[in-house]
Amino acid sequence: MIDRAVVVGAGLIGTSIALALREHGVRVGLYDPDARNLRLACDIGAGEAVDPADAGPPADVAVVAAPPAVVPRALLGAQRAGLAHVYTDAASVKAGVVAEAARIGCDMASYVPGHPMGGREKSGPAAARSDLFLGRSWVLCPTAEAGPKAVAAVTELARLCGGEPVAMAPDAHDRAVALVSHAPHVASSAVAARLVEGEAEALRLSGQGVRDVTRIAGGDPGLWTEILGHNPGPVADVLEAMAADLAGAAERLRAEQRGTGGGIRDILERGRAGRDRIPGKHGEPERAASRYTELAVVLPDEPGALGRLFAEVGAAGVNIEDVRMDHSPGQPLGLAQLSVLPEAAGPLAASLKEQGWSVHG
Amino acid sequence: MIDRAVVVGAGLIGTSIALALREHGVRVGLYDPDARNLRLACDIGAGEAVDPADAGPPADVAVVAAPPAVVPRALLGAQRAGLAHVYTDAASVKAGVVAEAARIGCDMASYVPGHPMGGREKSGPAAARSDLFLGRSWVLCPTAEAGPKAVAAVTELARLCGGEPVAMAPDAHDRAVALVSHAPHVASSAVAARLVEGEAEALRLSGQGVRDVTRIAGGDPGLWTEILGHNPGPVADVLEAMAADLAGAAERLRAEQRGTGGGIRDILERGRAGRDRIPGKHGEPERAASRYTELAVVLPDEPGALGRLFAEVGAAGVNIEDVRMDHSPGQPLGLAQLSVLPEAAGPLAASLKEQGWSVHG
Repeated sequence: MIDRAVVVGAGLIGTSIALALREHGVRVGLYDPDARNLRLACDIGAGEAVDPADAGPPADVAVVAAPPAVVPRALLGAQRAGLAHVYTDAASVKAGVVAEAARIGCDMASYVPGHPMGGREKSGPAAARSDLFLGRSWVLCPTAEAGPKAVAAVTELARLCGGEPVAMAPDAHDRAVALVSHAPHVASSAVAARLVEGEAEALRLSGQGVRDVTRIAGGDPGLWTEILGHNPGPVADVLEAMAADLAGAAERLRAEQRGTGGGIRDILERGRAGRDRIPGKHGEPERAASRYTELAVVLPDEPGALGRLFAEVGAAGVNIEDVRMDHSPGQPLGLAQLSVLPEAAGPLAASLKEQGWSVHG
Repeated sequence: MIDRAVVVGAGLIGTSIALALREHGVRVGLYDPDARNLRLACDIGAGEAVDPADAGPPADVAVVAAPPAVVPRALLGAQRAGLAHVYTDAASVKAGVVAEAARIGCDMASYVPGHPMGGREKSGPAAARSDLFLGRSWVLCPTAEAGPKAVAAVTELARLCGGEPVAMAPDAHDRAVALVSHAPHVASSAVAARLVEGEAEALRLSGQGVRDVTRIAGGDPGLWTEILGHNPGPVADVLEAMAADLAGAAERLRAEQRGTGGGIRDILERGRAGRDRIPGKHGEPERAASRYTELAVVLPDEPGALGRLFAEVGAAGVNIEDVRMDHSPGQPLGLAQLSVLPEAAGPLAASLKEQGWSVHG
């Protein structure tokens, strides 16, 4: 049972962890060398300021929420001050941090390295939110020395914050985040970097696509230089493969321009296949199309229309796996896209049609 | 004054144009060689089916909303059938389409090539929405032969659909969309293609960042192969520069790994600068959803849960403007994100909480 926690580092991640813990009644002590961050985090209810040099009896767990380069020293300091019985961190790279912590003499029995996979392009305590980790993976990388009680406490911490604990070796973690986070960040920057020299007239044509692709390129270059610098090998591996794919696509387009065939369908197909592998509900691929059947139901825009629809779906005993609304403001009719198990689609469509709904698909 | 229009092609773009025109009282005739698409588009109120061979007197304007390879022939057919006084298209590449239309003998005086810059990763009439072009640029590429009345009519069409008419030469258009749309699409695919061989454990760590970067990679590979194949030179130029940036970043990370300096802050800084050049919300009305307040309701994964929720929302007399489902992988609970009018949010939250729902936000 985590009753009391200390969070060292009141930035986006530390403050969000503190807020989540507070929602579960955990008493939280906060520390940050930046007095303004600390004051703001306390003001928004993330906890009470503590002086690490005089923090009283050890808390159940201490979280070092600091940049990768700072974590080992901050952890050592926290352990020497006896802040808690158990320690974790939240740095987004793990192998280097763990090796350095061991090298400088941190107690590895009470330390369970962690990485909650929540984040925003904003930073600082003002951007913190208690649901930042809700439903996100929370990687734990316990070393061989880690005690079972320490692992249990940090696992509980992750769950209290709404995260899904996932155990991984530090190296596997770093390769994984290179693939799904660090290299995509650099790719986003590479797309956005092209816009620097684009004509204003061209930039005006930007739609949602390029906005989405370049959103994370808006992140703090200093922070990301540090993150990437702590994970250089795995990130370089992925970037090299991406660069080869893009150069190959350019070459095939040149061939098409010369009329010597080409076609770049291959990279687009591989891209869609890769995109489909991003997990969604219950760890299934996010795109439900492979598993579920979609029914489009025309929906009058009036109070209770969705209620009536779902009441009738519920009465038919059918579970809706996913629902999307395609609804144009000011338009009399909307569409509800219902994803259901394939075997339920036919009977459900028939039953809804019988009750006067217009059903497609 | 556009009083009557014909839309040839009832896919995402054509149906969205038709819906937007209908909101302004324009009578819309629809045609699509795919009878199912046509029926669905008519059913959601986009217009009435017409037979191009027997369409009656010419409409004020006809829109050929077809893939680039199809536009010239479809335009010629529409002109020969006398569908309208003025013609436009919506193909996302222009130079090749315009040249081919002229070559096969289309009437270039009544044809004003166009490209509305709205889209979604979904296709087909079910995904159409009347606000797809709201605040988006709508490029017009009138040739020297185009009559002023034709240009005026197509400009009015763009405005009726909520778009911002922008005049550009076909070549400048194609270079611009290579930069802000076509090359970013390939880059998104290159990021997503890396995920094909990633371990499932790694994929589980996917957060919002990689989801955003790879969203457009979910688009139809066939359609995009065609789009890119019509704009090979300008796209290849951008892809080559991106590939060089990524290869350079990988090289610098390798140097950092060897301890010989490096650091990839440069590409991150350039990326942020480029990202900042994407025009903001000025002159671009916020998407309708942002007028609403979001409530997050925790949802047990069982038949009828959504039905019960929506029945209770309906009983409260509240209209749901939009709904999104956030499912967390491997977690028994999902989140339904309900968008409602701001003044309805407080009372609805209170009423749902009273009935035992866990409501956030």
